[in-house]
Amino acid sequence: MFKIKVLRREEIENILDVRNVIQGVEEAYISKARNEAEVFPMIFHEFESGNGDMDIKAGYLKGANLYGFKQVSWFGENPEKGLPALLGSMMIFEGNTGRPLGLLDASYITSIRTGAAGAIGIKYLARKNSKNLLMIGTGNQALFQLAASLSVLSEIKTVSVFNPRSPERAEKFVETIKDTLNRDFLKKFKENSEDYREIKRRYAVDFQTVNNIEKAAKEADIIITATPSKEPMIKKDWIKVGTHINCIGSDMEGKQEIDEEIFGLARVFVDDLNQSIRVGETETAIKREVIHKEDIIGEIGDLIEGKINGRLTDEDVTIFDTSGLAIQDLITAKYALDNAEKKGLGAEVEV
Amino acid sequence: MFKIKVLRREEIENILDVRNVIQGVEEAYISKARNEAEVFPMIFHEFESGNGDMDIKAGYLKGANLYGFKQVSWFGENPEKGLPALLGSMMIFEGNTGRPLGLLDASYITSIRTGAAGAIGIKYLARKNSKNLLMIGTGNQALFQLAASLSVLSEIKTVSVFNPRSPERAEKFVETIKDTLNRDFLKKFKENSEDYREIKRRYAVDFQTVNNIEKAAKEADIIITATPSKEPMIKKDWIKVGTHINCIGSDMEGKQEIDEEIFGLARVFVDDLNQSIRVGETETAIKREVIHKEDIIGEIGDLIEGKINGRLTDEDVTIFDTSGLAIQDLITAKYALDNAEKKGLGAEVEV
Repeated sequence: MFKIKVLRREEIENILDVRNVIQGVEEAYISKARNEAEVFPMIFHEFESGNGDMDIKAGYLKGANLYGFKQVSWFGENPEKGLPALLGSMMIFEGNTGRPLGLLDASYITSIRTGAAGAIGIKYLARKNSKNLLMIGTGNQALFQLAASLSVLSEIKTVSVFNPRSPERAEKFVETIKDTLNRDFLKKFKENSEDYREIKRRYAVDFQTVNNIEKAAKEADIIITATPSKEPMIKKDWIKVGTHINCIGSDMEGKQEIDEEIFGLARVFVDDLNQSIRVGETETAIKREVIHKEDIIGEIGDLIEGKINGRLTDEDVTIFDTSGLAIQDLITAKYALDNAEKKGLGAEVEV
Repeated sequence: MFKIKVLRREEIENILDVRNVIQGVEEAYISKARNEAEVFPMIFHEFESGNGDMDIKAGYLKGANLYGFKQVSWFGENPEKGLPALLGSMMIFEGNTGRPLGLLDASYITSIRTGAAGAIGIKYLARKNSKNLLMIGTGNQALFQLAASLSVLSEIKTVSVFNPRSPERAEKFVETIKDTLNRDFLKKFKENSEDYREIKRRYAVDFQTVNNIEKAAKEADIIITATPSKEPMIKKDWIKVGTHINCIGSDMEGKQEIDEEIFGLARVFVDDLNQSIRVGETETAIKREVIHKEDIIGEIGDLIEGKINGRLTDEDVTIFDTSGLAIQDLITAKYALDNAEKKGLGAEVEV
């Protein structure tokens, strides 16, 4: 009865770049700030503890007249079976009729919209003259965080990379990061376009591994954490004035990446107030009463909209805690669908 | 990366019949009784009060190694736009890897698995010698309730049909029901097969409209309610001993079809304990303290498994309250997918 567009990961990769996704995610955050977006309660199920789980995140973007959901599963033993551990798909629907619009692979969308969320935190909260960036974590998301964040930063000189469990992985990451950024992110822009030249310059920073995390943290203007850690890796005393911290990894109860005491001295921003308190990095700081809900300055959308103030001085420590919202996926998926239409990409199927 | 099967409503209709769906739904109920099935919390969102809503029901069938979800939307103004008010789609995934298996239209599956649920309530709870069946409601679901329930009843002589708001609709329903049953349900069975002959006989009952609902209820051996009512339509005093009541319509807070006092004199069975108390017909009886949770005899799966007793005597009044579980959809969808494979039906798409 309905023709829907089906987009595979390769087609989605072909369409999305860090600039168009950052723009989309900002729009989603703004919609939320204007009460034109809703995030529905998440369904989460653990099949076997530590071995397999799935979640369904759904939401509604009134302005864009669409709603939909994303289903993501993780099965630890998949790689042994020749399958990726993380799999996901999403569907979007017309907001005022329920008409299905598309079915999309969710893996690339999730990665790049999370990178975009981080970049937006940095764009609105980090000092413009930030020079040293410390990246904690060297997995898939570390790559997307750097690809997106560097695209919004013009003064970075050095990116220090730390893997809390394996210095070797940090070495490997640093060895390949420039090639990867150029191949997977820069190449999407038209060669010699203004975007291309600007992002090429921004990706041309120095990457180095660090072994002394305390020293690296003390020198950092921006710290990004993107690990599955359940223990704080960054201590309060290591944070210098003016630092901005992007907390990306914590998206489930019990996860924690930085000392909760840091929340006591920072201006704290989140993507969604309730979700951050429940499953974000903010969870522990609230549970241990380092801060109360009222101490959170607000949501990033309100900041972009100018309803609240971000950094007040160059001395402020700022935190952006994001655990990811379905509306980021929805707006990114809609952008991919619209552009697939223009570019003639994707299969059509009747459902 | 994955080839999935896409099934449209027509293809699904081609595969499913009342017998194979009843069998599947019984299996789903049994899995639940054996703790091999899980029903996840539902996502529900109302877009505009009384004008548009959507829900996502998800679950896991361990034995069948599959999980998945169904998204159903209702937009009251769709018919004016040439679209059905009710739309839905569902996806199922391999239970131990998350590999997507199929995308299916959900409208026919929802209708027929709800019919099957009703039939199972009747099969296990109504008196075998039931002769008079009273159907309250004349919508799409009334048709599926009769198609499935009559297939499990061998002694029915008369089906009385009542529409609480429009006698004309009841007339219309009765005029066309035999043709519809034969065309849409009987014809799926191989002509002159045993199933065909048996179901043909069972569909050949007398259908009549009733205007005096009190009299009809007092004569009924089985009452089925399948309306969107928010007010009780059947009074306690009208229920004769031995009657079985299938409560199908209540699937949301605030809906009610029968006098909650009837729960006080009945043996009450449900599809899911918590969901029935929250959104089923049982909701009001519990809220008004006619019964307490402990008074519910149990879930239908436990009855099928023989863990609890159903009807104890021919004098018992019994109630089956079903508000529908994702696992019914999942098992029905899996059956449709497997058979589509065999019959070469459905499109394939790479996702």
